[in-house]
Amino acid sequence: MVRAVDVIRKKRDGEELSAAEIDWMVDGIARGDVADYQWSALLMAIVLRGMDRSETVALADAMMRSGLVVDLSSIAGAKVDKHSTGGVGDKTSLVLAPIAAAAGVLVPMVSGRGLGHAGGTLDKLESIPGFRVDATLDRYREILRETGLVLIGQTAEIAPADKFLYALRDATSTVESVPLIAASIMSKKLAEGIDGLVLDVKFGNGAYLPDLADARRLAETMCDVGRSMGKKVVALITRMDQPLGLAVGNAVEVAESIACLKGEGPDDLTGLSLDLAAEMVKLAGLAGTIEEARGICERTIQDGSALERFRRVIAVQGGDARVVDDPELLPQPRRKVELKADRPGWISRLDARPIGEASMLLGAGRVRVDSAIDPAVGVILHKKLGDRVEPGEPLCTLLVDDEAELDRAREMIEGAYHLGEAGVEVPALIVDRLIAGGE
Amino acid sequence: MVRAVDVIRKKRDGEELSAAEIDWMVDGIARGDVADYQWSALLMAIVLRGMDRSETVALADAMMRSGLVVDLSSIAGAKVDKHSTGGVGDKTSLVLAPIAAAAGVLVPMVSGRGLGHAGGTLDKLESIPGFRVDATLDRYREILRETGLVLIGQTAEIAPADKFLYALRDATSTVESVPLIAASIMSKKLAEGIDGLVLDVKFGNGAYLPDLADARRLAETMCDVGRSMGKKVVALITRMDQPLGLAVGNAVEVAESIACLKGEGPDDLTGLSLDLAAEMVKLAGLAGTIEEARGICERTIQDGSALERFRRVIAVQGGDARVVDDPELLPQPRRKVELKADRPGWISRLDARPIGEASMLLGAGRVRVDSAIDPAVGVILHKKLGDRVEPGEPLCTLLVDDEAELDRAREMIEGAYHLGEAGVEVPALIVDRLIAGGE
Repeated sequence: MVRAVDVIRKKRDGEELSAAEIDWMVDGIARGDVADYQWSALLMAIVLRGMDRSETVALADAMMRSGLVVDLSSIAGAKVDKHSTGGVGDKTSLVLAPIAAAAGVLVPMVSGRGLGHAGGTLDKLESIPGFRVDATLDRYREILRETGLVLIGQTAEIAPADKFLYALRDATSTVESVPLIAASIMSKKLAEGIDGLVLDVKFGNGAYLPDLADARRLAETMCDVGRSMGKKVVALITRMDQPLGLAVGNAVEVAESIACLKGEGPDDLTGLSLDLAAEMVKLAGLAGTIEEARGICERTIQDGSALERFRRVIAVQGGDARVVDDPELLPQPRRKVELKADRPGWISRLDARPIGEASMLLGAGRVRVDSAIDPAVGVILHKKLGDRVEPGEPLCTLLVDDEAELDRAREMIEGAYHLGEAGVEVPALIVDRLIAGGE
Repeated sequence: MVRAVDVIRKKRDGEELSAAEIDWMVDGIARGDVADYQWSALLMAIVLRGMDRSETVALADAMMRSGLVVDLSSIAGAKVDKHSTGGVGDKTSLVLAPIAAAAGVLVPMVSGRGLGHAGGTLDKLESIPGFRVDATLDRYREILRETGLVLIGQTAEIAPADKFLYALRDATSTVESVPLIAASIMSKKLAEGIDGLVLDVKFGNGAYLPDLADARRLAETMCDVGRSMGKKVVALITRMDQPLGLAVGNAVEVAESIACLKGEGPDDLTGLSLDLAAEMVKLAGLAGTIEEARGICERTIQDGSALERFRRVIAVQGGDARVVDDPELLPQPRRKVELKADRPGWISRLDARPIGEASMLLGAGRVRVDSAIDPAVGVILHKKLGDRVEPGEPLCTLLVDDEAELDRAREMIEGAYHLGEAGVEVPALIVDRLIAGGE
């Protein structure tokens, strides 16, 4: 007979847990005979003692099976999703989902909300007037079949054990653990009914795991979990030192995504979105090489089919699709405050985290899980790493509704910009690419 | 503002907690804004990261202040208690409390119940027909004033935070931690209103901390906590490899304690009880040297005053004091089963833990916190470490009511006895003596 105290003791003493023990603990959440205080003790033991790959696979698998594992086999075609570990200004989902769908990939995307300095795809989508991110599983299948993509939030049926553990980790400082993060992400993603998954694992000051080695370990672990569960997984390890693109917020990030789909977006955002979309196309078996896949994706921007696909999914999910042609229909802030350079120089560093935190203070993000979001506010950067600035030139524009935290937000952003005497080279965004489950 | 997640994170990352943070977490139990699942995560972090002495003092102090700190200053005289970390056959409390009281020490003893292989003083006392271990604090003071000693259980008013944390530790495998054990013991003991405390810290296979180094660390930590809180503390570090005395159970241990008080007890038990009682007499300032104190204690046995004191406290606490003259009035088992040696030899090892577990299986101890106790059952040893045995000689007698677990208990005891070809030396019980707060 398995007992919670014995499982906790084993992990406390640094021993490996069996799949049966992990199953029993996860199933115990629904059975009701493993208490939250027992799970939090186990979580802390896992944070401090670690879990090896087979334990992590067992945990992800048990968490996935705690709820419904969606069966999408009635819809012909390869289903591929993307997941990012999160960063500041990271709106690639909004750009690459329509691109990949226009390229022929079925994209059943289940996203999350933002917490802290990083935004969430759902919050961004909801800034489109009328857009609904909730749907029954039947409707989810229907939208995917009709539109080739669907953009919704986690439903109660998907991985309820993850929902329980995620809340517990948040309240007990047991978030920062590679195996726990990997199992949480993979349990949800693999319950979506996908064949393949592209991961964007970020590191740097704006990421949840600042350290490259940790990010690499997380990417490897998630690839292992995916492979063990019979899925194709590719992970790109990417820099999150400065915000991605120029827009940080919600409506403003939707507007920038639309610009990208029109071929008018900033290079870093467009490039990374295309690289990730190309991985999806390749995983779906729609191209022989990654270069060919990249070409297919680029053409969906050039021929307008990606933009058209975005317009369609907005309409199908209840949103006002006119925002695609007229982004001014998106929520607008009451006031715009420019922040100007007081001396000449080159931007030698632009820290993503304080920009994200400033945006959160202005109302674009959540200080707490139950905070409300102001879709109109945020930050638009005019200068980024490596750019030359002259005195009086605007560094960025703050989009403001409630001015209560404006001074603090401004200070944070001033601290995020570092000016140097000489130009610096902007390093490549992608530093590594890992593959599980074969090319 | 202190937040539970931040305190947990600090300890998780190996940092030292401030007294204010520890206070806030302990007070949060009563305030209701620190959840049990947050405390259990912190407990696991403490088990794995440790706590230094100032943190341990702060925790013991906060736990003590979570309830009533008894004021015994209206009763003239030095109040000294003893605490043992627990072992098999450890009934020294029953022997030394009357001895110390007869020697003039006021002994306000608050004891606990047994769990697992080790017995508890309260369970033993309750095997005396009519004996009541519950009392209001007023009655506690009254009995102490009248009788010079009082033997009760922890009341709800004393250290409620310890009660909460103790239950949580039991359910989350966070029991084995020197600072947590030290803080738990000292919070309760220092709330009793005592001036001094004698600690019997046991190591060996029958103790909760088998390792001598751990026991020494626990003893040092408890001495530190006591000194920091202005109390005199002496700790003896003693062996718990084989059971103490010959009796293991409840009524049978009371009978053996009575024999000791008549000068007819086994040497090891009588000796350790006198050594501990002498420390109490010395701490109370009733003797100039420990040798003098030992002499005073020995005379309370010779002149019958200790036995008389035990008779009085039994009567005052509602028990049948005739058991002192006629131990047959104590609960008797239905059946006695002798276990005999099958070959000649010397007892080269006698493991305390399986003897304690066998006694528990027979009904003398608790498998779970809410198990019922059978006061009549247990084990009487006839042979101990270093003894010569001939084939057919009885090694021990099992006192049995319910025979359901008799075979398992017998097997356990057979495994506990190791026979060798030659005699072995029996090592001294006391291996070290630590003093805090000055001689």
